[in-house]
Amino acid sequence: MNVNSEVFPFAAIVGQEMMKKGLLLNLVNMSLGGVLILGEKGTAKSTAVRALADLMPGLRVVNLPVSATEDRVVGTLDIEHAVREGEKRFEPGLLAAAHGHILYVDEINLLDDAIVDALLDAAAMGVNTVEREGISHSHPSRFVLIGTMNPEEGELRPQLLDRFALSVEVNGEREVTNRMEVIRRRLAFESDPVQFRRTYEKEQAELRRRVERARELLQRIEPSEDLLVWTATVGIRLGVDGHRADIMLMKTAMALAAFQGRTRIVPEDMVEAAMMVMPHRMRKRPFEEEAFDAEAIRTLLGDLQEVTHAP
Amino acid sequence: MNVNSEVFPFAAIVGQEMMKKGLLLNLVNMSLGGVLILGEKGTAKSTAVRALADLMPGLRVVNLPVSATEDRVVGTLDIEHAVREGEKRFEPGLLAAAHGHILYVDEINLLDDAIVDALLDAAAMGVNTVEREGISHSHPSRFVLIGTMNPEEGELRPQLLDRFALSVEVNGEREVTNRMEVIRRRLAFESDPVQFRRTYEKEQAELRRRVERARELLQRIEPSEDLLVWTATVGIRLGVDGHRADIMLMKTAMALAAFQGRTRIVPEDMVEAAMMVMPHRMRKRPFEEEAFDAEAIRTLLGDLQEVTHAP
Amino acid sequence: MNVNSEVFPFAAIVGQEMMKKGLLLNLVNMSLGGVLILGEKGTAKSTAVRALADLMPGLRVVNLPVSATEDRVVGTLDIEHAVREGEKRFEPGLLAAAHGHILYVDEINLLDDAIVDALLDAAAMGVNTVEREGISHSHPSRFVLIGTMNPEEGELRPQLLDRFALSVEVNGEREVTNRMEVIRRRLAFESDPVQFRRTYEKEQAELRRRVERARELLQRIEPSEDLLVWTATVGIRLGVDGHRADIMLMKTAMALAAFQGRTRIVPEDMVEAAMMVMPHRMRKRPFEEEAFDAEAIRTLLGDLQEVTHAP
Amino acid sequence: MNVNSEVFPFAAIVGQEMMKKGLLLNLVNMSLGGVLILGEKGTAKSTAVRALADLMPGLRVVNLPVSATEDRVVGTLDIEHAVREGEKRFEPGLLAAAHGHILYVDEINLLDDAIVDALLDAAAMGVNTVEREGISHSHPSRFVLIGTMNPEEGELRPQLLDRFALSVEVNGEREVTNRMEVIRRRLAFESDPVQFRRTYEKEQAELRRRVERARELLQRIEPSEDLLVWTATVGIRLGVDGHRADIMLMKTAMALAAFQGRTRIVPEDMVEAAMMVMPHRMRKRPFEEEAFDAEAIRTLLGDLQEVTHAP
Amino acid sequence: MNVNSEVFPFAAIVGQEMMKKGLLLNLVNMSLGGVLILGEKGTAKSTAVRALADLMPGLRVVNLPVSATEDRVVGTLDIEHAVREGEKRFEPGLLAAAHGHILYVDEINLLDDAIVDALLDAAAMGVNTVEREGISHSHPSRFVLIGTMNPEEGELRPQLLDRFALSVEVNGEREVTNRMEVIRRRLAFESDPVQFRRTYEKEQAELRRRVERARELLQRIEPSEDLLVWTATVGIRLGVDGHRADIMLMKTAMALAAFQGRTRIVPEDMVEAAMMVMPHRMRKRPFEEEAFDAEAIRTLLGDLQEVTHAP
Amino acid sequence: MNVNSEVFPFAAIVGQEMMKKGLLLNLVNMSLGGVLILGEKGTAKSTAVRALADLMPGLRVVNLPVSATEDRVVGTLDIEHAVREGEKRFEPGLLAAAHGHILYVDEINLLDDAIVDALLDAAAMGVNTVEREGISHSHPSRFVLIGTMNPEEGELRPQLLDRFALSVEVNGEREVTNRMEVIRRRLAFESDPVQFRRTYEKEQAELRRRVERARELLQRIEPSEDLLVWTATVGIRLGVDGHRADIMLMKTAMALAAFQGRTRIVPEDMVEAAMMVMPHRMRKRPFEEEAFDAEAIRTLLGDLQEVTHAP
Repeated sequence: MNVNSEVFPFAAIVGQEMMKKGLLLNLVNMSLGGVLILGEKGTAKSTAVRALADLMPGLRVVNLPVSATEDRVVGTLDIEHAVREGEKRFEPGLLAAAHGHILYVDEINLLDDAIVDALLDAAAMGVNTVEREGISHSHPSRFVLIGTMNPEEGELRPQLLDRFALSVEVNGEREVTNRMEVIRRRLAFESDPVQFRRTYEKEQAELRRRVERARELLQRIEPSEDLLVWTATVGIRLGVDGHRADIMLMKTAMALAAFQGRTRIVPEDMVEAAMMVMPHRMRKRPFEEEAFDAEAIRTLLGDLQEVTHAP
Repeated sequence: MNVNSEVFPFAAIVGQEMMKKGLLLNLVNMSLGGVLILGEKGTAKSTAVRALADLMPGLRVVNLPVSATEDRVVGTLDIEHAVREGEKRFEPGLLAAAHGHILYVDEINLLDDAIVDALLDAAAMGVNTVEREGISHSHPSRFVLIGTMNPEEGELRPQLLDRFALSVEVNGEREVTNRMEVIRRRLAFESDPVQFRRTYEKEQAELRRRVERARELLQRIEPSEDLLVWTATVGIRLGVDGHRADIMLMKTAMALAAFQGRTRIVPEDMVEAAMMVMPHRMRKRPFEEEAFDAEAIRTLLGDLQEVTHAP
Repeated sequence: MNVNSEVFPFAAIVGQEMMKKGLLLNLVNMSLGGVLILGEKGTAKSTAVRALADLMPGLRVVNLPVSATEDRVVGTLDIEHAVREGEKRFEPGLLAAAHGHILYVDEINLLDDAIVDALLDAAAMGVNTVEREGISHSHPSRFVLIGTMNPEEGELRPQLLDRFALSVEVNGEREVTNRMEVIRRRLAFESDPVQFRRTYEKEQAELRRRVERARELLQRIEPSEDLLVWTATVGIRLGVDGHRADIMLMKTAMALAAFQGRTRIVPEDMVEAAMMVMPHRMRKRPFEEEAFDAEAIRTLLGDLQEVTHAP
Repeated sequence: MNVNSEVFPFAAIVGQEMMKKGLLLNLVNMSLGGVLILGEKGTAKSTAVRALADLMPGLRVVNLPVSATEDRVVGTLDIEHAVREGEKRFEPGLLAAAHGHILYVDEINLLDDAIVDALLDAAAMGVNTVEREGISHSHPSRFVLIGTMNPEEGELRPQLLDRFALSVEVNGEREVTNRMEVIRRRLAFESDPVQFRRTYEKEQAELRRRVERARELLQRIEPSEDLLVWTATVGIRLGVDGHRADIMLMKTAMALAAFQGRTRIVPEDMVEAAMMVMPHRMRKRPFEEEAFDAEAIRTLLGDLQEVTHAP
Repeated sequence: MNVNSEVFPFAAIVGQEMMKKGLLLNLVNMSLGGVLILGEKGTAKSTAVRALADLMPGLRVVNLPVSATEDRVVGTLDIEHAVREGEKRFEPGLLAAAHGHILYVDEINLLDDAIVDALLDAAAMGVNTVEREGISHSHPSRFVLIGTMNPEEGELRPQLLDRFALSVEVNGEREVTNRMEVIRRRLAFESDPVQFRRTYEKEQAELRRRVERARELLQRIEPSEDLLVWTATVGIRLGVDGHRADIMLMKTAMALAAFQGRTRIVPEDMVEAAMMVMPHRMRKRPFEEEAFDAEAIRTLLGDLQEVTHAP
Repeated sequence: MNVNSEVFPFAAIVGQEMMKKGLLLNLVNMSLGGVLILGEKGTAKSTAVRALADLMPGLRVVNLPVSATEDRVVGTLDIEHAVREGEKRFEPGLLAAAHGHILYVDEINLLDDAIVDALLDAAAMGVNTVEREGISHSHPSRFVLIGTMNPEEGELRPQLLDRFALSVEVNGEREVTNRMEVIRRRLAFESDPVQFRRTYEKEQAELRRRVERARELLQRIEPSEDLLVWTATVGIRLGVDGHRADIMLMKTAMALAAFQGRTRIVPEDMVEAAMMVMPHRMRKRPFEEEAFDAEAIRTLLGDLQEVTHAP
């Protein structure tokens, strides 16, 4: 049974532009640190994540199930072996497997606290350290963290929320023609996956090339004084305390410019970045209706543009 | 003791037409993915499931008891053996046993979260993967999931609810003659199972042939443009966000047509499919009285027919 | 120490006619499936159960204590042995010991959910199946389930409640002469058990013969059309949904007729059976005062008699 | 260190006449089944129990601490040994050690449910049975159960409460001269236990002889018709349902008569017995102020005497 | 690293006279049974306890941490060894280590119930008994129990509270000069512990001699009739039920007299003893403001003096 | 992968002056006992702690994760080895590793009670003792305890709170230019850590020298009479009971003077010390708005200055 052959092509996903862009930006700059996908069941979130990994050769998705034990996530140190044989033996866990890849957590808001701690430690240091009875083992663990959650089923610990560079919302399609297209493609894929993938081969290759080119352009983008003023002002105006938000905002705007094939950041990059970076960092009940009023953010940013670009 | 000889014949079940059709459709298209049976105790739900498996040669029911451990469901990897002998040894669990068969969960709303996670993973991928300390084992796991629940005893996690293609309601018979027939048949069966089954042999064979013929017809049904419009519109009108609902709706209508011996889908197939696919997917409290007002759904669908078939 | 010599004779139990009849009917038809005894502490429930087993040669009581583990109830599979020796070894549990006998659960409403699941599985299938790591073992497990509970100390899961064919209520005696007789017999028994049992030998033998004769008569009773109409109508009038109630009602009426030495069911059998079969199955709070108003049931049944026997 | 030498003599206990009589009656008839001592901390309950055992040669107190595990109470079966050697090996627990002796549970209302189950089983059968994986071991286990509890710290399960033949209340002394005597004796005992015990040797011997003589007299007391009427009427008037109360009431009155050196039961024995047997068995909140109004019970009993002794 | 050299000298503790006296009285009569220190964090409670042990040669403090397991407190019996070798092996726990010494429990109100049970058992019997699977081991365990608690963080089980002979309250100093002295001494001690201890050597030796002399005087104090009347009357007037309070009150007064170098108890000893013995034993909410109104106790005692000393 | 090369230089941290001073004072006097950092996520708390350790050669940070087990924190005694080999073997834990270094606990208010107990024991004694089954092992454990917490996510146990010498609050920067500088430095550091660190080498060396010089000056500061009066009066006026507050206040003022290059304490040192020592020790809800009104503390202290310096 060939599991891989069943991956639905990223390019064949209908609509959901914000989610797709959030995912692709993490391919452009893998140090961005991931994306949190907010939405209801049945909105193809896991299909999209698997499709993303399938898009880039060598990239793979490591699935962290909500019921995983801490040992399985961080790995285990065999103390008996160390004592007996005089050398340590480490059984790597999911954090090792995810190094350089995607770590995917569906329903991340249901994760145990101990696992969240391990994720936060690794995310903060880029290193996973396991210590037991005086012996310790470290290995690099840098990954793109992709989490999904249904905001109606509980919140996320603020520390974890803050570690996500971006958050995007997904909703079911409301257009008849789009929905028809979703069904049509899914049925076509189910009836003959190999043929279906062949149809999208060209589009997939194009997307791949665009990501690769954006990676190169990104090296050449410098944060201008203008951009710094802008970024700092947005954070203060939105009442976001931490500095991580500012840094993420700027890096996301840079990745967006590169994805558009530019080395210059334009105001619209800034608006789009803020829409993905800010909402989940705003104080008090990040997912409250008001906090998510995207239009308000856009207005605020529009206003800033004028100010900073007036002269 | 011959356990098998005691199975009550599917054809001898009195009434409960919706439940019986829901079960049979899953035989017509085993990729439909199962049915959730809603009803009170004592309404012969498990009798019907066992009878369904008995109907088709080689099909069997794997029972997943609510108290099963995760190990028993997903299977276990013998790590010590792997380390010692250099080859992995996997003890298959219920998800392996259920591959190609029926996985039956009575009172599914009482299932542990970890088991639900395992079911959802297998249902999403068609594969069950067990990982322990860096070693992993995968095997195909595609099954017809049949769950029963009493809506008065708690709800189901939305993710799991959404995985069920169909939901059907069962109620006790209210007609004196039907109830008399239920008692008469049960007593006859209890007093001489072998003779009783002989009486229904012909009806059973006929049902079996009808399912087999429907499987062939299904290969020849193409989703028409008309059907796509219809399906997408129904989802939007009922406020069902996920695309899985649309896809299930169409696949169910196709199976229904085939079960009726046709290759053409008629409006009544659509109405009947929506009655089984939609109610448990409607937003907010899926089992609320209002959400279950079957008549409202029928009216809405009737209305749609006119629109889409007007010309 | 001879434990058996201490059993109080069934025939020496003063009063409690309903409980005694409920117990004896399960000897007449051991497929009835048991009786639930409702009453306060100190009302000789366990004395009666032990006396019942003592009445019939070869019948024994298997006690399922509320604190029993699941392993002890269902038995255990020795996996290591199976792997090592290539043959499975099963240590039977209480469900094996109870096959063909009485399984007695005092304070059944305090039982763990996992144990209740095991009881329900065995009761539904007549078979107990233990599965571990891909190995499974089944053995027949048909028993008369006798449970006791004090309704003031919590309810029973509806599924389990429904599995009991009959429920009977016990109360302390309110008549001075009866109470005097209870004390007199108990003291006589305590002071010389052997002599006391000798006094009741003849009565015990008579009861035994009556049960045995009833078993023979039962083979000759046929459910008449009249009885079927009656049974189905009662279930509908009382709002009991499940068909199990109807079937139990008829089987109990048949056992009662046989216990009275008849092969014909008379209206009074029907009334008496309904009093034991229906109350615990009535919807919503089965033990509410209203639901237990035995007189109302009797009235309803009296009314039915006229209707069905009018011509 | 000689622990035994430190037991305070039973005869040296100041006041607390009801508790002392309750304890002594259980020596007169060891099948009475124990006594529940109700009272606050610091009222010498455990001192009295240890003194009681010290009074009779060969009688000992087995202490069941509230934190004891079930294994420790019922004993353990060594399954591995049974399988390996073909013979069972049983490590006896506290229920074995207590056979023929006193089982003492301080703060019995804090006992775990599983332990209470084990106590109830043993108390009901006079036998302790341990079953594990198909192997079982039984041994006799008849004991005088003495429990203490502070009614302000929670209640006792009704089943356990009902198993106690008698309940007695203890209170701190309110008389200055008695309290002075308590202190004087305690200090004298603490300063020279050996000498102190010598002072009470004669009184202790006398008490012992009285108990022994009462045991002989008890054999000759027959429950008269009068007594039976009386006992049954009391139970009905007080609304005590179970028959155990009646039987205990009569046995206690008999033991009291014997302890007073008589073979005839007089009304005062009946009054005194009822005061110890009835209060904790009265329906609804046994320890409510009203239920414990001893005077009301005495009045009721006085009234009964006239009735039954009028002619 | 010399841990012992760091003990702050008892004589250098500024203020806290009541706590210091409560501690010293337990050195005068080690059978008093301990002291409960009530007060907030940061009030040098543990410093004082360590200083007390340091004062008397050979006395040591055994610390019972709130997180200690039951095994660690009572010790463990090695059953396997007993079975294999035929001799029992006992690993002593903290109750063995504390025999003849101080057992110190900081935040005693947070102790687990099982540990409290073990403490109560040992305190009641002067013996610690460990039983496992029919094997038991006992060893003497008499100790001075010193507990601390912050009354704002929960109460103590009445049984445990009652076991403390004395309770004393500590508060932070409110006098500037005293607080200055506390700081001055602490800094001096921190900067040169050896020199600091030398400064207090003479005062420490004097305290030691005073305790030793009090121990001798105590042997010669007899409880007079007067004292007995007094003690009994105080208990009754304060509504303290248990006799332990009376006995503790008298023993404390005797120790106080001895500590003052007398063999005669004077009224002021009585007042002072009652202040430490009674408050935590008064009925209903021992730490309520009212119950702790020390002045009321003093008034009551003053009144008693007149009565009993009038003639 | 060189983890160490990634440490952000302490000198490059923008703003957060109070937190930086609190951390540096603990380098000046390592017996101060640590600092509690209060603030929201994303405010660079852990960056600052790692930078602090990086500043001083040989100092390292031991991270105590919230999910650490007690064994891992205190170390483990290998009892089997001790029994078998006759010598004890201790596997040191985090408390051993932290000796002479920094022990860092992020989100310290989420720590388990058993771990908090272990921290408090070690902090109180300067020694960590592990006892198991009669065997014990001690080792010195003096460390600078640095904890962080978000006051919105629960409180700290008062005992633990009191152990922190100092508490400091951190907030996100509100100045555009400062925020710009934060982003600029972070991006520069991320793009070339080695070069970035080189830029700050001189500033880092200067800070290091300043700390070292302060350590020398501290030896020469004597607590004057004036300072003692002052310190004691502040504690009384603020209603802080424990003496630990007074001592910390004085030691902090001394360290501050030394850090400023003086051997004389000036009023402003006193004010600054009180701002870090007092707020978290004030009675009732230490983090309530009112209790944290820093201005009120400053006013009170200003007032004191006049009083104590008037003459």
